[in-house]
Amino acid sequence: MTDLHGYIDENMDRFMEELNRFLRIPSISAKSEHREDMKAAADWLAARMEEAGLDVSVEATDGFPIVLGEYRGAGPDAPTVLVYGHYDVQPPEPLDEWTSPPFEPEVRDGRLYARGSVDDKGQLYLHVKAIEAHMKTHGGLPVNLVLLAEGEEEVGSENLMPFVTAHRDRLACDYVVISDTTMVGEDVPTIGTSLRGLAYLEIHVRGPKSDLHSGSYGGGVLNPATALARIIATMHDDDWHATIPGFYDDVDPMEDYRRKIAEVPFDHDGFREDTGTDEVGEAGYSTPERLWIRPTVEVNGLLSGYTGEGAKTVLPAKAMAKISFRLVPDQDPARIEELVARHVERVAPAGVRVEVRRLHGGHPWRATLGSELYAAAERALGEAWGREVAYAGEGGSIPIVPEFEQVLDAPVLLMGFGLPGENAHAPDEWISVGNLQKGTHAVARLWTELGG
Amino acid sequence: MTDLHGYIDENMDRFMEELNRFLRIPSISAKSEHREDMKAAADWLAARMEEAGLDVSVEATDGFPIVLGEYRGAGPDAPTVLVYGHYDVQPPEPLDEWTSPPFEPEVRDGRLYARGSVDDKGQLYLHVKAIEAHMKTHGGLPVNLVLLAEGEEEVGSENLMPFVTAHRDRLACDYVVISDTTMVGEDVPTIGTSLRGLAYLEIHVRGPKSDLHSGSYGGGVLNPATALARIIATMHDDDWHATIPGFYDDVDPMEDYRRKIAEVPFDHDGFREDTGTDEVGEAGYSTPERLWIRPTVEVNGLLSGYTGEGAKTVLPAKAMAKISFRLVPDQDPARIEELVARHVERVAPAGVRVEVRRLHGGHPWRATLGSELYAAAERALGEAWGREVAYAGEGGSIPIVPEFEQVLDAPVLLMGFGLPGENAHAPDEWISVGNLQKGTHAVARLWTELGG
Repeated sequence: MTDLHGYIDENMDRFMEELNRFLRIPSISAKSEHREDMKAAADWLAARMEEAGLDVSVEATDGFPIVLGEYRGAGPDAPTVLVYGHYDVQPPEPLDEWTSPPFEPEVRDGRLYARGSVDDKGQLYLHVKAIEAHMKTHGGLPVNLVLLAEGEEEVGSENLMPFVTAHRDRLACDYVVISDTTMVGEDVPTIGTSLRGLAYLEIHVRGPKSDLHSGSYGGGVLNPATALARIIATMHDDDWHATIPGFYDDVDPMEDYRRKIAEVPFDHDGFREDTGTDEVGEAGYSTPERLWIRPTVEVNGLLSGYTGEGAKTVLPAKAMAKISFRLVPDQDPARIEELVARHVERVAPAGVRVEVRRLHGGHPWRATLGSELYAAAERALGEAWGREVAYAGEGGSIPIVPEFEQVLDAPVLLMGFGLPGENAHAPDEWISVGNLQKGTHAVARLWTELGG
Repeated sequence: MTDLHGYIDENMDRFMEELNRFLRIPSISAKSEHREDMKAAADWLAARMEEAGLDVSVEATDGFPIVLGEYRGAGPDAPTVLVYGHYDVQPPEPLDEWTSPPFEPEVRDGRLYARGSVDDKGQLYLHVKAIEAHMKTHGGLPVNLVLLAEGEEEVGSENLMPFVTAHRDRLACDYVVISDTTMVGEDVPTIGTSLRGLAYLEIHVRGPKSDLHSGSYGGGVLNPATALARIIATMHDDDWHATIPGFYDDVDPMEDYRRKIAEVPFDHDGFREDTGTDEVGEAGYSTPERLWIRPTVEVNGLLSGYTGEGAKTVLPAKAMAKISFRLVPDQDPARIEELVARHVERVAPAGVRVEVRRLHGGHPWRATLGSELYAAAERALGEAWGREVAYAGEGGSIPIVPEFEQVLDAPVLLMGFGLPGENAHAPDEWISVGNLQKGTHAVARLWTELGG
C-alpha cells in the first residue's frame, strides 16, 4: 500500500491533466447558450467522482443538475462531512483581455490560467483527488463523506437549498467543508472567518420612446443616461460612505474583530500590485476592514446609447446599471433591496421612469470558531504548508454558507486555496499550481484528522 | 417642351425608385467596415448627377470622396449657387428597434422609412431631381450651380473645409443652399435661422488594471463606473443648468430673438407625442428656446463592466462615456472642450485616472436674414406649400455652415424638408413623401426665382 501523501505527489501530473479537461468545458450558468456545456460538465464530474470511489448520482433540479457523491464506509462512529463546490463558472467577457483563451488552460509561472481554475473547478476537483488518494492507498476514507457539486453558484443557487432541504436526511452531517475562498497571502494557509452577503439589482431608466437626435431634441427632454448617472452618484458621499437611508442600520460594528483584523498579515503592497491601483474606500477603515466587515455599493455594469466606434449624436431612450451591494452581519438582502428601490424612486429626477429589478441575493455569514472541525483544519493546513494558519475574512459571498448551517445544523469550514490577485470573475483567472498540490494534501489530511 | 412642375409631378414615382436604390447602400461613414459601401454610394450619386446634366467629378480626399457636379451654362450675369448635401448616414443601431430594416426603404402612411431618408440622402437627391427637371424642360438652369456632396458629415467633415479652401475659386458662389434641416411643423415651410454647434468628447475612466471580483475587492478600490457617474452628475444642477465653470460665459442671451420664438407655431403636443415623454429641461426657458438658443450637456453613450444577461459580480477596470455639448452663439467648441476637460480633471475622485478625448466639434451659426436669397426662398417655399413661411431655429448642428460662409464669403440658406419626429439618428428614420415632392418643386422654383 502506497503512502497517502506520496500517492498525491506521484499522481499530480495526471490530476492536472484531468483538471484541464474539466476547465475546457465552458460551463457558464448565466448564459442560456451554454446549457449543453453545463450538462457535459456535470456528467464529466460525475464520472470522475465515480472513478474516485464514490457512489454518484446526478440529481435533476429545476435548473442545472446537482452532482452528488457519497461514501458511507467509515461506519456510524466516524463523523460525516459534507463537501460543497460548484462546477459552473462566470462568463469570461471581456475576451480580449485574456492572455490565453479562457477555456484553454495554460500554466505560466506556476499558475494555471483558465476560467474556473480557482472559482471553483480547481478547488472542487482537488477534493475529488484527495478522496481518490485515500481510496487507492487505504481502500476507504476515515470519515463518511458527501460531495455535493452544484451548477448554479454563479447565478444565485436558486435550486440548491430546496434540494438540500428536501434531502435533509441524506445530507445530514457533522461538518460542512467548502474550498471556494482565498488565502490572505502567498504561503499563508487561511481559515475563513466571514463572508459578505449580496444584493444584486438592475436599475432601468427610460426616457423618450425611442433614441432621439441629440441636436433636434437635446435640452428639451431628460436624458436617461444623465438621470442614471445622477441616481448612482447619490449612493455615496465624498468619504465613500453609502448614503442610502438605512443602509448601515443593521451593520454590526464588530469592534472586537477589528482589533484582530489589525493583526492579520494583510499584504497591502500585494493588494496594490494585484489591483494595479490605489487603496481607496470608506474613510475611517483599513483595506481589510473595508473588504471583510464593511458593506459596499458597487456598479457592475453600465449601458446606454451608442458605445461603438465614432461619434453618434444620439439622445438615448434608456439606460441600465447593474449594481450590487456586499452585505455584512446583520444586514438582510431583502431589506437592502427594499431600501435601495425606495432610494432610487426618491432621487430619480422627474422626466424619466425607473424600475429596479432584483437579480439575486444572499446573507452575510461569520464563522463559529473553536470546534474540533477548526482545530483539525488548523493542523491539516499547518502541516501541508509548514506555516501557521491565519484567520481572515473574505470579501466575496457564498450565499449558501449561512443556509447550509441553518438547514443542516452543522458548522461550515471555509478552507480555500485561492490567492490574492487570482482574477476570479475577471480575465486571466488563475490558481497556483503549488496550492492545488498543497490543497490536496491538506484536504486529505483533514479527513485523517477528523476520522482519527 | 414640358412644364417644369408638371415634369416633377409626372416623374415622381421614378424619383422615388431611384432614391430607394440610394437608400439601400449602407453608407455609414463612422464604421470602417462600410468603406466599400461609401465608395459605392459616391459612385452611384455621381452617375445620377451626370445623368441629370451636370459635369461631375469624384474628388478624392484624405477620407471619403467629395462628389462635385457643376453647371456653368447660365452665363456670367446669372448668380452662382452652391448646393451642399451629404451621402453618408448615421449607424443604424439599435437594429431591433426598427420596424422595417434600416437599409430596406419602405413607405408606410405617406412616410418613407430608411436610414438616410431625411438625413440627408432624400433631401440631397431631390436637388438632383430639381436640376434634372430644369434640364429636361428648359435645356438648362436659370442659375449657375455647383452641387457638392460629401461623405463625412456624420463623422465631423474633417476633409471638407480643406477641400473647399483649396478649391475656393472653383466653388466661388453668391449663395449657399442646404437642405438638411427640419420644418417646424407639418405643412409649415420653414427657413432656418440658427444652428447649434457641437463639441463631442469621450471620457475614459480607468481604475484597476483589470476587471476584479466585486466581492474580493469591492470597497477596497475605487470603482471607475461609480467615478464616471459622479463626474457626469457634476455637470448639471437640479434645474438642469449646466454647472461646468465658464460654460455659459459666451452665450448670447438673444433676448430679441426670444420674443420672436414665442410667436413661432411650435407644436408642443406634437413634441411630446414624437418623443413619448415630458418636456423637461433648463428652468426658465421654453422648449423651443431650450432647443434653439440654449446649449446642452448630453450623454450619448455609457459603457462599463458587464452588460449582458444575468448577474456578473465584476468590479470593472474601466468606464466610458460619450458626451456631447450643443453650443449656441457665441460659444466656441475648442473653448468648451477645454472647460469640460478642466472640469472633469477637477471633479474626478482620487483613485481613478481620467482621460478626455475629443471626437469632433463645430461652431454654432445664425442666419443673416434680409437678402435677395431669403426673399426668393420665401416665395419658392410659399408657392410650393401654399402657406406662409416660418422662420425657426434648429437644435442640430451642421458645423460646416458657418465655415462655408467664412471661406466662400456667401450667405447660407437652410431650406430643409424634414418634419418633427423624423427620427434622424434614431431607429425608424423617415421623410414625408409629400415633402419630397413639394421640396423638389420648391428647389426648382428657387432657381427660377434667383435666376430672375
